[in-house]
Amino acid sequence: MLRSNTCGELTISNVGSEVILCGWVQRSRDLGGMTFIDLRDRYGLTQLVFNMETNSNLCLEARKLGREFVLKVAGKVAERSNKNLKMPTGEIEIIVDNFEILNASITPPFTIEEQTDGGDDIRMKYRYLDLRRSTVRANLELRHRIAIETRNYLDRERFLEVETPVLIKSTPEGARDFVVPSRMNQGQFYALPQSPQTFKQLLMVAGFDRYYQIVKCFRDEDLRSDRQPEFTQIDCEMSFVDREDILQTFEGMVRHLFKSVKGIEIPELPRMTYADAMKNYGCDKPDIRFAMKFVEMTDLVKGKGFKVFDDADIVIGINAEGCSEYTRKQLDELTEFIKKPQIGANGLIYLKYNLDGTIKSSVDKFYSAEELQKWADLFGAKKGDLLLLLAGDTHKTRNAMNELRLEMGTRLGLRDKNKFQCLWVVDFPLLEFGEEANRWFAMHHPFTSPLPEDLHLLEKNPGEIRANAYDMVINGVEVGGGSIRIHNKQLQQQMFGILGFTPEEAHYQFGFLLNAFEYGAPPHGGIAFGLDRLCSLFGGSDSIRDFIAFPKNNSGRDVMIDAPSLIHPEQLKELGIDLKS
Amino acid sequence: MLRSNTCGELTISNVGSEVILCGWVQRSRDLGGMTFIDLRDRYGLTQLVFNMETNSNLCLEARKLGREFVLKVAGKVAERSNKNLKMPTGEIEIIVDNFEILNASITPPFTIEEQTDGGDDIRMKYRYLDLRRSTVRANLELRHRIAIETRNYLDRERFLEVETPVLIKSTPEGARDFVVPSRMNQGQFYALPQSPQTFKQLLMVAGFDRYYQIVKCFRDEDLRSDRQPEFTQIDCEMSFVDREDILQTFEGMVRHLFKSVKGIEIPELPRMTYADAMKNYGCDKPDIRFAMKFVEMTDLVKGKGFKVFDDADIVIGINAEGCSEYTRKQLDELTEFIKKPQIGANGLIYLKYNLDGTIKSSVDKFYSAEELQKWADLFGAKKGDLLLLLAGDTHKTRNAMNELRLEMGTRLGLRDKNKFQCLWVVDFPLLEFGEEANRWFAMHHPFTSPLPEDLHLLEKNPGEIRANAYDMVINGVEVGGGSIRIHNKQLQQQMFGILGFTPEEAHYQFGFLLNAFEYGAPPHGGIAFGLDRLCSLFGGSDSIRDFIAFPKNNSGRDVMIDAPSLIHPEQLKELGIDLKS
Repeated sequence: MLRSNTCGELTISNVGSEVILCGWVQRSRDLGGMTFIDLRDRYGLTQLVFNMETNSNLCLEARKLGREFVLKVAGKVAERSNKNLKMPTGEIEIIVDNFEILNASITPPFTIEEQTDGGDDIRMKYRYLDLRRSTVRANLELRHRIAIETRNYLDRERFLEVETPVLIKSTPEGARDFVVPSRMNQGQFYALPQSPQTFKQLLMVAGFDRYYQIVKCFRDEDLRSDRQPEFTQIDCEMSFVDREDILQTFEGMVRHLFKSVKGIEIPELPRMTYADAMKNYGCDKPDIRFAMKFVEMTDLVKGKGFKVFDDADIVIGINAEGCSEYTRKQLDELTEFIKKPQIGANGLIYLKYNLDGTIKSSVDKFYSAEELQKWADLFGAKKGDLLLLLAGDTHKTRNAMNELRLEMGTRLGLRDKNKFQCLWVVDFPLLEFGEEANRWFAMHHPFTSPLPEDLHLLEKNPGEIRANAYDMVINGVEVGGGSIRIHNKQLQQQMFGILGFTPEEAHYQFGFLLNAFEYGAPPHGGIAFGLDRLCSLFGGSDSIRDFIAFPKNNSGRDVMIDAPSLIHPEQLKELGIDLKS
Repeated sequence: MLRSNTCGELTISNVGSEVILCGWVQRSRDLGGMTFIDLRDRYGLTQLVFNMETNSNLCLEARKLGREFVLKVAGKVAERSNKNLKMPTGEIEIIVDNFEILNASITPPFTIEEQTDGGDDIRMKYRYLDLRRSTVRANLELRHRIAIETRNYLDRERFLEVETPVLIKSTPEGARDFVVPSRMNQGQFYALPQSPQTFKQLLMVAGFDRYYQIVKCFRDEDLRSDRQPEFTQIDCEMSFVDREDILQTFEGMVRHLFKSVKGIEIPELPRMTYADAMKNYGCDKPDIRFAMKFVEMTDLVKGKGFKVFDDADIVIGINAEGCSEYTRKQLDELTEFIKKPQIGANGLIYLKYNLDGTIKSSVDKFYSAEELQKWADLFGAKKGDLLLLLAGDTHKTRNAMNELRLEMGTRLGLRDKNKFQCLWVVDFPLLEFGEEANRWFAMHHPFTSPLPEDLHLLEKNPGEIRANAYDMVINGVEVGGGSIRIHNKQLQQQMFGILGFTPEEAHYQFGFLLNAFEYGAPPHGGIAFGLDRLCSLFGGSDSIRDFIAFPKNNSGRDVMIDAPSLIHPEQLKELGIDLKS
């Protein structure tokens, strides 16, 4: 090694040692006769000292070093007079004997500091400089640690990591595939996998019993800020299990990750049905770090001449505890919030249960004080609370109330990023009806098994069937989802039929799986976690991009390497394809 | 779990326990009043017993079960009267109380046994059945274990696993890229990475210090039996190191793998220069499980009127010890062997040092007994040895002698698959001249650093420059290779120039890397191992396909899922491409 030590490990116990360090110039300070340089590597910062009195030539050379120069420095560890106990190496410094410039640096386009002055675009273009920032590096160290601990847990549980192919077959069901033209089979294409779903099921048919893979998946979708065309899943499957086994196994995994990576003990995960999640939180991934459950008051409020309520399918409210002092301006802000097009509510009704015991509501001309008191009682409201009510179509109103609840949670500081509440959501609907296509779509995917007790609904009432499916939700974010699979050929064919496949289409696309089911497929099920999302959650960030070394932007471009790009006409010719003019 | 135990774990200590097992019917035997079924899962086989006397109904049902039926079986563990000590569960059997057929199976197209009657094509089409065979499953379990132990070692050595992108930019240098048309950037293409080379170098520029990744790579090449369009590398890079550090670190990794996966202690790895490898073994990846080094005898044999030798650039021989009794037929076979077009030698000359002390050679009309004795002495041959000689052009002759040496090693049983000899080959040439293109090509890749002491040859004699590169060779197979990289922009530009890039081309393709080198790139180097190859070597097989769950055939097809395949015209339209008619 060019160095004897890293920049993060020397302490008071090393005083007197001769050491060699390598790293980057983080910053440089000239204080009268002394020059101080902080030398940085992945492991930390160490202060270097140059003294005009004892070695003026060296000190003058040191003063010429710019930010981000790469140095190899030899010197002696000394105790600092001015200790910095915030950093591990803060009690020592290196009295430099000599140094070598391993490489120079021109001035970086933004500061390489925890908080940088660089905007998003410039940081992405120079991602290799952005990655030098301790915060960004810490994110990727966290990702490494999560991946290692995931593998250790699953290995102990006797899961085998099996690599499934990246060059597979395009299947139009689901999102849009990225495709790869085949040169050796002209006119034909591979597809990049949206998930290894069918392969992991085949591994169960193959008797592999417990499979996992941390694997890149691909979706050619129009990107939102939290989507990437390539993303990473922790993909898992088990045989001879029922739902309970899978929930226990992967609850164990997530608790292991919290314990080993963050030192946090997570209690047993609560479970919630999809129906309850929708009723109480208006969404299938409730943030249960705070309560503020929906209260349905439809029956209580109807028939008093207030048309908004009388015409509504549903009237629901939440109790924003301790908010009765909200000003007109604050209430107007909330009204603006819920009227935004992406939320789409028409108006907000409030009830203030004032500290003096009086009640004030935006609709008190329709309701008597006694009636309003009943509202407050229904919520179990205390003096000082504020009820916020929405009314209208059931689905839309729950949706809007979900947004309002999350907004209030944020405003009230109830969504602490360092607090984690995990949850299983179960019993999802199996199918949802697509009005446009006028057919049923699989809510999860076509391989999901119905709950056994709902199988009888398959012919007559498919919309009512519950899936044997489950999502893991942490802090209101869906981090994983899966299901018990169909392992019976007839049922799988029937499901393809319900989803509008002709037998020929089903055979063309999934014949290999249907065939495999004829040779002794075991009962099986699985789950997949979004690793990017899990990392961002563990790291307390909303952005998955911060946890990907080389992410793409919202147009699917890597602006650092400038991809995608034009390719040579010769390459197109070899592949037998033309660009449309 | 549907089961209480696996089929691989019950022993004499479990006798008397009530258990539930799940698995596949491996085989069934009716012996008079008893029926025996071997139930199989990933973990092993357990014998089930059904007795006509005690439960005739159940026994009759059991007799109807076909091979590969999936069962859930409840019963009691009993000691076997007829023990099979070759299998872990061979001392017990299960007296079955009841069973449930979890799934039936039609008759498999080949037998699911260690040695199967299925040919390659049918096994690939039904790969999910092939994977049920214990030998194939063991290969993939080995692969899992190698991957886990690789990660454990590198994690302990503070390497960070960082995922680099799969959708990158096409760079024509090197092999042919697979490309992916971009829908959002029409007319432009991503490429799938042939290796994460530039990204790992950027991670070093980013200060990540030690990186690794077990990662899929892609090459659109015409396939040979040991090549796959997608393959997996253990890809690594380190900063602030010289060659010695890398050799030590990865020698440590391979020794750890042998120890932890196979229980084998590997001694310190010998090192051999490329020049010595070519001189002594005629190839850059010598199999050193056996000696049989080349002996150069050019000077000794010339000028005696034997035209073949007199006209040759080189005359070399090997000593096949103990083979003096080889028959005419055996020698003819060897002559045929070296005359095969892919080897291409013209003829084989031999010298038999007979057990009685006489010497017999195919060229003894040109050489006296004394002269032939000198040959034998040069080789240090003993009575009973056989010298095999080839002559001609240096490169071709060494090539042919390499093949002959390996053939003799195989014939003499010197290439035991359970014996492992590891080796570093170092000091490769940096460049090789491509006659057709009339320019220099990088032997490793354009980012490889010259040996510091050879830098002065860059202008005038590039063909003589040795690279700071190294290969790890095990049993004659190159399992890994790497180099110290160039980290200086000027040198990198100069290298692109030597390789025939214009400055504009270099900038278009690798501008991001050249730019990165301006911001303080540290000295760095790395290595990549072929995981598929490493697994096949550990597993004692010549075929990497046996160690890939779902391999492609020689036309790049996955015959199980039938990919690549036609895609919908709508998909082409969205991508803005046409098929050439």
